[in-house]
Amino acid sequence: MVNVRTTKLGIIGAGAVGTSLAYAALIRGAADQIGIYDLNPARAEAQVLDLAHGTPFAHRTRVAGGGDLDVIAASDVVVITAGASQQPGQTRLDLVTTNAEIIRALMPQLIKRAPEAVYIIVTNPVDVLTEVAADVAGLRRGQVIGSGTTLDSSRLRWLVAERAGVAPRDVHALILGEHGDSAFPLWSNATIGGSPIQDWVDETGAKIFDDDALADLANQAVLSAYSIIAGKGATNYAVGLACVRLVEAILRDEHMVTPVSTVLRDYEGVDGIALSVPCVLGAGGVQRVLRVAMDPGEHDAFQRSGEAMRAVLEEIGQL
Amino acid sequence: MVNVRTTKLGIIGAGAVGTSLAYAALIRGAADQIGIYDLNPARAEAQVLDLAHGTPFAHRTRVAGGGDLDVIAASDVVVITAGASQQPGQTRLDLVTTNAEIIRALMPQLIKRAPEAVYIIVTNPVDVLTEVAADVAGLRRGQVIGSGTTLDSSRLRWLVAERAGVAPRDVHALILGEHGDSAFPLWSNATIGGSPIQDWVDETGAKIFDDDALADLANQAVLSAYSIIAGKGATNYAVGLACVRLVEAILRDEHMVTPVSTVLRDYEGVDGIALSVPCVLGAGGVQRVLRVAMDPGEHDAFQRSGEAMRAVLEEIGQL
Amino acid sequence: MVNVRTTKLGIIGAGAVGTSLAYAALIRGAADQIGIYDLNPARAEAQVLDLAHGTPFAHRTRVAGGGDLDVIAASDVVVITAGASQQPGQTRLDLVTTNAEIIRALMPQLIKRAPEAVYIIVTNPVDVLTEVAADVAGLRRGQVIGSGTTLDSSRLRWLVAERAGVAPRDVHALILGEHGDSAFPLWSNATIGGSPIQDWVDETGAKIFDDDALADLANQAVLSAYSIIAGKGATNYAVGLACVRLVEAILRDEHMVTPVSTVLRDYEGVDGIALSVPCVLGAGGVQRVLRVAMDPGEHDAFQRSGEAMRAVLEEIGQL
Amino acid sequence: MVNVRTTKLGIIGAGAVGTSLAYAALIRGAADQIGIYDLNPARAEAQVLDLAHGTPFAHRTRVAGGGDLDVIAASDVVVITAGASQQPGQTRLDLVTTNAEIIRALMPQLIKRAPEAVYIIVTNPVDVLTEVAADVAGLRRGQVIGSGTTLDSSRLRWLVAERAGVAPRDVHALILGEHGDSAFPLWSNATIGGSPIQDWVDETGAKIFDDDALADLANQAVLSAYSIIAGKGATNYAVGLACVRLVEAILRDEHMVTPVSTVLRDYEGVDGIALSVPCVLGAGGVQRVLRVAMDPGEHDAFQRSGEAMRAVLEEIGQL
Repeated sequence: MVNVRTTKLGIIGAGAVGTSLAYAALIRGAADQIGIYDLNPARAEAQVLDLAHGTPFAHRTRVAGGGDLDVIAASDVVVITAGASQQPGQTRLDLVTTNAEIIRALMPQLIKRAPEAVYIIVTNPVDVLTEVAADVAGLRRGQVIGSGTTLDSSRLRWLVAERAGVAPRDVHALILGEHGDSAFPLWSNATIGGSPIQDWVDETGAKIFDDDALADLANQAVLSAYSIIAGKGATNYAVGLACVRLVEAILRDEHMVTPVSTVLRDYEGVDGIALSVPCVLGAGGVQRVLRVAMDPGEHDAFQRSGEAMRAVLEEIGQL
Repeated sequence: MVNVRTTKLGIIGAGAVGTSLAYAALIRGAADQIGIYDLNPARAEAQVLDLAHGTPFAHRTRVAGGGDLDVIAASDVVVITAGASQQPGQTRLDLVTTNAEIIRALMPQLIKRAPEAVYIIVTNPVDVLTEVAADVAGLRRGQVIGSGTTLDSSRLRWLVAERAGVAPRDVHALILGEHGDSAFPLWSNATIGGSPIQDWVDETGAKIFDDDALADLANQAVLSAYSIIAGKGATNYAVGLACVRLVEAILRDEHMVTPVSTVLRDYEGVDGIALSVPCVLGAGGVQRVLRVAMDPGEHDAFQRSGEAMRAVLEEIGQL
Repeated sequence: MVNVRTTKLGIIGAGAVGTSLAYAALIRGAADQIGIYDLNPARAEAQVLDLAHGTPFAHRTRVAGGGDLDVIAASDVVVITAGASQQPGQTRLDLVTTNAEIIRALMPQLIKRAPEAVYIIVTNPVDVLTEVAADVAGLRRGQVIGSGTTLDSSRLRWLVAERAGVAPRDVHALILGEHGDSAFPLWSNATIGGSPIQDWVDETGAKIFDDDALADLANQAVLSAYSIIAGKGATNYAVGLACVRLVEAILRDEHMVTPVSTVLRDYEGVDGIALSVPCVLGAGGVQRVLRVAMDPGEHDAFQRSGEAMRAVLEEIGQL
Repeated sequence: MVNVRTTKLGIIGAGAVGTSLAYAALIRGAADQIGIYDLNPARAEAQVLDLAHGTPFAHRTRVAGGGDLDVIAASDVVVITAGASQQPGQTRLDLVTTNAEIIRALMPQLIKRAPEAVYIIVTNPVDVLTEVAADVAGLRRGQVIGSGTTLDSSRLRWLVAERAGVAPRDVHALILGEHGDSAFPLWSNATIGGSPIQDWVDETGAKIFDDDALADLANQAVLSAYSIIAGKGATNYAVGLACVRLVEAILRDEHMVTPVSTVLRDYEGVDGIALSVPCVLGAGGVQRVLRVAMDPGEHDAFQRSGEAMRAVLEEIGQL
C-alpha cells in the first residue's frame, strides 16, 4: 500500500475568516488538502467551489467541504472560526456562554475525527474558548492553541515599522496577555533591526519612540480592530494570514517563536488560565512556553489580564 | 536622484473582488505597492488596514487607499472592479447603461493619473465595459483588457482535471466568446497532459469525455457562478486569483497565453467587438491576439457571442 | 505521542547535481528535511553546511548529511545522483556495467532504510539504471522512476517558447524514449497556447515551425547538454529544478503529468524495458502510465529507443 | 510606446557564486531578467543555457549572457563576483592588488552601461574592494555595497537557532566589521525570540549561552567557511541566497535592515573605511546607516577591524 503523507488543514466555519485562511493557505501551498465545515452546507459548498476554481493558478491543493463534520477527518491542524456573534439585547456574558457551549459540544466530535490534530481557536473571546477547548478529556498539553495576540503583535510590528521606515520583518515587538482590552505590548524587549526601540532615532538623530509615541502605538494596535469593523463590518484578511503562519509552523515543524494563547502553569503568577505568551510552535502544537523578562509595569498588566480572564471563566462555570 | 523602479497595482473598488485580488497580490508579492480606491473612503481605509496588518507575514508590499483617486496615481496596472449591481425592478439594460456611464466617467480620470497603466476591466458585463473603456481617447491598442473568460477557463480546467484525475495545470482548455451565457468551450483544441480530450481514457480504457460529458462540463463551468452566488452571495476568491495572474503577466512581461477580452479586428468574422480569445499578455497589456482553429460549431458559437454583444452595444449607444 | 508528518527528501551523491537539487528544494520549501549521503563524508558535510547557512533566508528546512546511509532513513523520496563517470580508456559499456553494479549494491541498503520511499534515478544511463533499480525485490510498481526525458522536454519547451515569443509554461511539447541519442519529440501532439505547433504563425502570418525548424529544435534540445558540458564541464541547474518538480509532485500527491522513465508493459510494442512516456506522478510515484497517440514516424523512433535499450540491457546481463 | 518596468539583475562572473545567485534568483522570481558576464564567453553561455532550461519549472525569468559587458546594460542591480584567486607563490597582498585593479578597471565600464544600478561587491577581500569600487567618480552614496557580513550573520543565526531549538528567523544576531578574521558578533544586542541571548535557558532552566558557548559560536561562524572550503573547494550556496535577499531588498524597496559593507563616515570612530554595520537597504541601495550601541569590547573589536582595513588600503595605495 502506498504511504501518502500529505498534509490536511480542517477549518470550522466558512465565513470570512475561515475562507480568508483557506484562500491564503491555497495560495501559499500551506497544506495539500483543505476541508471546510459549516453549519450551512450550501455556504460551505459555495466557498469550496469558489476556492477550488482558483487552484489552476496556484499550488495543487484539494479543497472539499460541506455540512458534515467528516470533511475535517484526519486533519493535521483544525482551525475553529465558528461561533455566534453578539445579538441585539444580548449581554457580553450571554455571548461567552453561548460560544463556550458551542466549543464544548464541538470538541469531542472533532477529536473523534482528527485525534492527532492540533486545534487552533480563533473564535472570540479566544482565550476563554481556548481554556474551554483544552479542558476536553484526552488532549495532550500543547495540542490546543488560541490564535491570541499573534495578530495584535503583527499590527504593532506594522505600525512601528511604518514609523521607523523599515520593513515589518525587522521589527520585533510582542503584545501579550488577553486578546482583548487588557492586552499590552512588551516594550521592554521590543527591537528595531536589533536595537532597543527606545534607542531608535530618526535620520536627524531625534528619538521618535518616546513614552507618548509608545502609548499611542499600543492604543492603535488594540483599537485598530474597531476601526476596521466600523469601516468594513469585520476583520478577516490579516487574521487569515496570521493563522496560515501558525498552520505552516505546525505542519512543517518550524519551531517558530510567536505569542499564542495556551493554558499557563505558574507563569508570572498566573496559573491555570489561558493567555498569550511567546511559545515555540511546531509539530504537535506548542512545544515550549518561553519565559520572558517583564518590567514591573508589564508584570502588573499581565496580572490584570489574568484576573480579567479568571472572572469570566468563573462566571461561565469553567473554573 | 534614485531610480525607483518598483511596481504598483491600482484597484478601483474595495469590495470582495477588489480586496481578494489585493490579498492574493500581497501574499504572492505580485506588486510592490497597492493603491485601493473606493467611493466609500471608510471602507477603503478599513480594507487597507486589514490588508496591511498581514504584511509582517508576507512579502513587503505597501498598501494604501481611500476615497481620492490619487491613490492609484502612477500605477502600472489598474484593475476596475467597481460598479452598480442590479437593483429590484431594474432591467438588465438599465444596469448596463448605468455601469457604462460609470466607466465612461471614470476612465479619463484614471488615465490622467496613470497614463501608462494597463487597464483590466472586471466589472460586469465585462465585454461591454471593455469596449466602452477602450473607446476613450488616447489609449494604445492592447492597453485595455477585460478579464473575460480567464476565470471560466480556469473553472473548466478544474472540472476536467477532477474528472481525469490529473492536476489542473496539466489540462489545457479554453472558454471563449462573451463572459456570459453565450460563452463556449473550444473543445477541439482541449488537451489533458498533451493528448486530445476526446481521446482520454480512464484506467479501464473507457473514454470518459464523450459528447454528453463535455456538454455537462461546459454547463457546469458556465453555471457554477450561479451556484456560488446562491450559496454565498457573490464570487470573489477565484476571480481574485485569476486577476492576480493577469497582473503578474503584465508586470513581469511574461508573454503568457490566456483568453482575455479585447476589441477584435476581423476575427472569425467578428469586428469592432470585445470578446475573449487567446492573447499573449505581457508588458503593455495584450501584445498579440492569437488566431485559433475553430470547428464549424465553435465558429457559429463565436458568431452568436458577437451578435449578442453587438445588440447590447447598440442598445446603449456604444456602436 | 506527537504525530510529526513532516516530509523528507534523501539525496545520494553530494556533487553538483545532488546539491543543486537540495538548494532548489530548500529555496522552494519542497521538503521539511533533506538528508544528503556521499561516499566522501567531508564533501557531504561541507555541502550540508553551505546549504544550511542559507536557511535563515529561505523556508525552514533541516539539512543533514555525511558518509553514513542512515542520513536518508525514513525519506519519502530518495533521488540517486551518484555514480562513476567515464574514465580515460574506459569503454561506454564498462561504465554502464560499473554503474549498474553500484545501483544493484545500493538499492537494498536504501530500501532497508526507506522502504516506503519513491526512488528517482538521475545517474546515467538513466533508463538502464532505472531498470536495474526496479528489479530489486519487494518494490511496488511505480516506486522506481528515472528522471528520463523530463529535462529534455523542458529544454524543448524553452526553445519553442523562445522562438514563438510566449512563456515556456504555455508550450506543451514532450520528448519521449531513451534519455540519450535515440530520444525524439512527439511533435504530433505539441501545442503552443493550445494550438498545434505546426499551425503556429508569427505576427506576419508566416508559419515558423516547418519541418526544418522542428528538426533543428529537436537537435538543439538533444545536443544542448553537450554544449553545456563543453562550456562548464557538467550540467546541474536545470536538472536540479526538473528533479525538484518531480519531488514536489510526489510529496504533495499532485497527479502531475510528465514524462519519466519507468519499466513499460506492452507499450507501443515495447515490453519490460524502461523508457520515458507521459505518466501521472503523485503519492507513491507513478500512479498511471498514459497512452499517447504516435504517428508512424514517432512509433518507429520509439521502437528504436526500445531496441537500443534492450541491446545494452542484454550486454550487462540485466535481461 | 510601451512602458516596460521589468527588473534586471546583472552578474559579473559565471562561476559557482555568480550562478548560484542566478539560480536562486530564477527560482524565487527575484528579477525579470538576468544578464551574466564572464571573461570566458563559453562558460557564461553554458551557464545561461543550463539556467534557462530550468525556467519552464520556475518563474518566467529571461536569462542571457556571454563575454560582452553589454549583457548587463540597464541593470537595476549588478553583483560582482569575479576576481582572481590566490596563486601558488602569490602573497595575499599581491592578490588584493590584482583584484583592486580588476575592480578599478571594471567599474567605469559597468557604470557606463548601468548608471542607475546599485553595485554589490562579493569578490574578496570584499571590504577593500567595496572601498575601491565606491571611489569611482560619479556614484551616489549608498550606490555601492559590499555583501560584507550578511552571510557571516546568517551563519551565526543558524548556529544559535540549532542550539536553542528555534527557527533561524527567530534569532537576531549580527556579525559586524570586516568580512574576515577581525569580524565579531554584536552579542550585546543578540536576541532569541525577542529575549536577550544571555538570558536564554533550555527546557531544564539552564543558561546555555554562557561566555564559552558564545565564543565557540563566534569561532564556528567565522571558521565555517574554511571547513566548507576544505570539504568542497569553495562556498557558493549560502552566499547565493544571501545575495538574492540583498537584490530583492533593493529591487522591491524593502527597507530591510541587514549588515552590509559601506564606506563609513565617523562611525564609532571609524571614518572613510568600508566595514559592515546594520543598514537600511532599499531602492537606490543603502538608504540609511544605522547606529548601534556597542559595549566596550565590541567597540574595541570594531576599531581593530577598522585598523586592519586601513593598513591594507594604505598598502594598495587606496588611502
